[in-house]
Amino acid sequence: MPLTIKHLLGLKGVSEQDITLILDNADNFYEVLQREIKQVPTLKGITVVNLFFENSTRTRISFELAEKRLSASPLNFSTSTSSVSKGESLRDTMRNIEAMKIDMVVVRHGAAGVPAFLTQCTNATIINAGDGLHEHPTQALLDMMTIRQKLGRLTGLKVAIIGDILHSRVARSNAWGMTTMGMKVVVCGPPTLMPQHPAPLGVEVTDSIDNALAGADVVMMLRLQLERQGSGLFPSIREYRERYGLDLEKLSRLTKKVLVMHPGPINRGIELASNVADGDHSVILDQVTNGVAVRMAVLYLLGGGGENA
Amino acid sequence: MPLTIKHLLGLKGVSEQDITLILDNADNFYEVLQREIKQVPTLKGITVVNLFFENSTRTRISFELAEKRLSASPLNFSTSTSSVSKGESLRDTMRNIEAMKIDMVVVRHGAAGVPAFLTQCTNATIINAGDGLHEHPTQALLDMMTIRQKLGRLTGLKVAIIGDILHSRVARSNAWGMTTMGMKVVVCGPPTLMPQHPAPLGVEVTDSIDNALAGADVVMMLRLQLERQGSGLFPSIREYRERYGLDLEKLSRLTKKVLVMHPGPINRGIELASNVADGDHSVILDQVTNGVAVRMAVLYLLGGGGENA
Amino acid sequence: MPLTIKHLLGLKGVSEQDITLILDNADNFYEVLQREIKQVPTLKGITVVNLFFENSTRTRISFELAEKRLSASPLNFSTSTSSVSKGESLRDTMRNIEAMKIDMVVVRHGAAGVPAFLTQCTNATIINAGDGLHEHPTQALLDMMTIRQKLGRLTGLKVAIIGDILHSRVARSNAWGMTTMGMKVVVCGPPTLMPQHPAPLGVEVTDSIDNALAGADVVMMLRLQLERQGSGLFPSIREYRERYGLDLEKLSRLTKKVLVMHPGPINRGIELASNVADGDHSVILDQVTNGVAVRMAVLYLLGGGGENA
Repeated sequence: MPLTIKHLLGLKGVSEQDITLILDNADNFYEVLQREIKQVPTLKGITVVNLFFENSTRTRISFELAEKRLSASPLNFSTSTSSVSKGESLRDTMRNIEAMKIDMVVVRHGAAGVPAFLTQCTNATIINAGDGLHEHPTQALLDMMTIRQKLGRLTGLKVAIIGDILHSRVARSNAWGMTTMGMKVVVCGPPTLMPQHPAPLGVEVTDSIDNALAGADVVMMLRLQLERQGSGLFPSIREYRERYGLDLEKLSRLTKKVLVMHPGPINRGIELASNVADGDHSVILDQVTNGVAVRMAVLYLLGGGGENA
Repeated sequence: MPLTIKHLLGLKGVSEQDITLILDNADNFYEVLQREIKQVPTLKGITVVNLFFENSTRTRISFELAEKRLSASPLNFSTSTSSVSKGESLRDTMRNIEAMKIDMVVVRHGAAGVPAFLTQCTNATIINAGDGLHEHPTQALLDMMTIRQKLGRLTGLKVAIIGDILHSRVARSNAWGMTTMGMKVVVCGPPTLMPQHPAPLGVEVTDSIDNALAGADVVMMLRLQLERQGSGLFPSIREYRERYGLDLEKLSRLTKKVLVMHPGPINRGIELASNVADGDHSVILDQVTNGVAVRMAVLYLLGGGGENA
Repeated sequence: MPLTIKHLLGLKGVSEQDITLILDNADNFYEVLQREIKQVPTLKGITVVNLFFENSTRTRISFELAEKRLSASPLNFSTSTSSVSKGESLRDTMRNIEAMKIDMVVVRHGAAGVPAFLTQCTNATIINAGDGLHEHPTQALLDMMTIRQKLGRLTGLKVAIIGDILHSRVARSNAWGMTTMGMKVVVCGPPTLMPQHPAPLGVEVTDSIDNALAGADVVMMLRLQLERQGSGLFPSIREYRERYGLDLEKLSRLTKKVLVMHPGPINRGIELASNVADGDHSVILDQVTNGVAVRMAVLYLLGGGGENA
């Protein structure tokens, strides 16, 4: 059974069946990653361009690893060494890349909608590695993979996403994906960092972290973007930490053990206390490991893989 | 029959036989690029360094793709992350690279003559990917490949090259190569953007685009380097577009269908109207596709390939 | 017989047996580098991250070549395109990389001790490619390989290291390694560029180049870091060259033929006259070639290779 989607632009509108197929394949690739030789010949001869218009460490490396472990041939393109500065339009850049017979494009861009736009310029398969404030679907997929791996299921679980929801493409992709998978999502943060119209996301909204955490199976802490300080969106880092940061004290008040997640990079001591990040509730490094497996699954399935890998 | 040249420094002085051999092999590699698996084992174990002292998107990616599709092992070196800033001489950089047993070097540099100079420092094979205002031979080869592919021959055809001829290494390489192949080349642009002594190039010179286009089989539009504005070399972009830009109206005046080419990146609406760039005269994306095939042919033949691939 | 060390953090404390094992394997890989096809399948499926926090040409390329020639899968990470600027701690960066199931990490960093610190954050094998003023062990290993290759042995030979000893991680690694191998090391430079407490290095110290050169089998010239000019550490470049630079005149005074070495990049005409760098005493390009072989040996042995390659 192949995917019904041709590109991975976001999780909005992606069906439960497609998400399940990706997660099942990711579990299989996870097994490959436990082997001594972690490479399979699945995508041999397939060329993938990693088109990163924003700097990135973990996402770029994670995709490149996924590509190499599938024996695809990755090409890296970053704006710092490119002719984008010569003023070429995105459409021309894309059509040029396509003319070189590229099979797949992984794109990260500061503007929402760029991956969707690229599908109109090319026959290559497009994978969104983060576009503006819109979506970051492989992050949400690795989050769901991690939850399913640890708790055995998704349906019926409650997830609290805490922090700067307004500017988080991770929160948006998770909201779409998790509600599709039958999970209950509560988003929580200062009113100034919440979306104005959260209703379409299908999530519950609160500005009380205690309400958000009550009964939660999973808590996902978002990175506070410190560069927004002085923008008036939150009063002070200290106050933010007290109200919205997760520490052992807040965890100890919960009656149920929760999984603690974070998409990274962590501001230790701000949104997440160091001993929680490294504690036994934390599955943060599992998320990173699973990221490679999920990206292998996405590349494999969009590259034409029809059955479980 | 191997090439008689050992390096590809430019097309000046390269024989009709050598150019034909490259184009014939490029046609063969073009077929490889139509396959699902576009990789051949031809250069397995061969190390190629891509030494780019100028930023570049398409040329760098095109060479890297060509290398990977021949199963060579590419290494990228760009000045932004190198120790060239420590003041090492170009000769020492080159001799160091050679001491690491590199087989081939693809070099782009802002100074004319750098590729030729490198041949004196190393036994590795040197391929010029653009040097200052001197030459850009693989671009001219892909241009000729495209013309031959579309029109079936080169000899006897008339090509009009329009724009900033003075600063164009593309125009220079095409002038040398095309006249060798028995083509008639007319160059056209504002007098301030024409070479002072065009005679050795063997081309006809005019500042009238109508004269240039009359009877042309191919028109090659060059990129106007907008950063030269204010240098006094051309009056205004609007005036340039009116006199030297190609649009549907100018095309409609021609009695013969021409191929429209551009080395990219295009300034849409300046030297080339958008509907012409995307119209049915345009072979601009074919040029990009053929670029990979031509570079595969050059790498293959200079790497010791003796017969048709 | 495998190595007794698990990481290569420096040569301080590394045994004569381990160094000899590396050099013996490097000699074997040197033979591989003379073949037409320089690639062996030794590390197929092994992922190596090259984590360069400082710009570098030759060391980064040399490691990447070594990795590719062993069929390992290299991933390049440089700070210019990474999220280190987002303020992530080194430990979190490392643990994230490890979570992606990386086998080996080659690291260069401006701060002494970073490679050692990384061993506490990860199970991956760490190789130091230069850390601050601390060590640069693969450079010292390639230096010793070159001496052994040219002179047939190490024990009993006298090496003079000339220049800015204080700021040289190359000098430090060589001091540790060469004394372990039974060589006599004399370091020489302006008193302002000498370590305050050289005793633990086990070397002889002099500020007279004639004393240093007397009876030397090998002279290793260090790069004068011109950016330190104006710091008051040396009077003028001209004076430095006269007292501490090596030229034909100084060489002609010696009664014994010496090998002339330099870790590069050379300031020609400052610490080393051009005709000496290119003369028949010089083994500088052999050092570069041997660098790839030594790095292949280190990667092979730390990657689990137990016998001679």
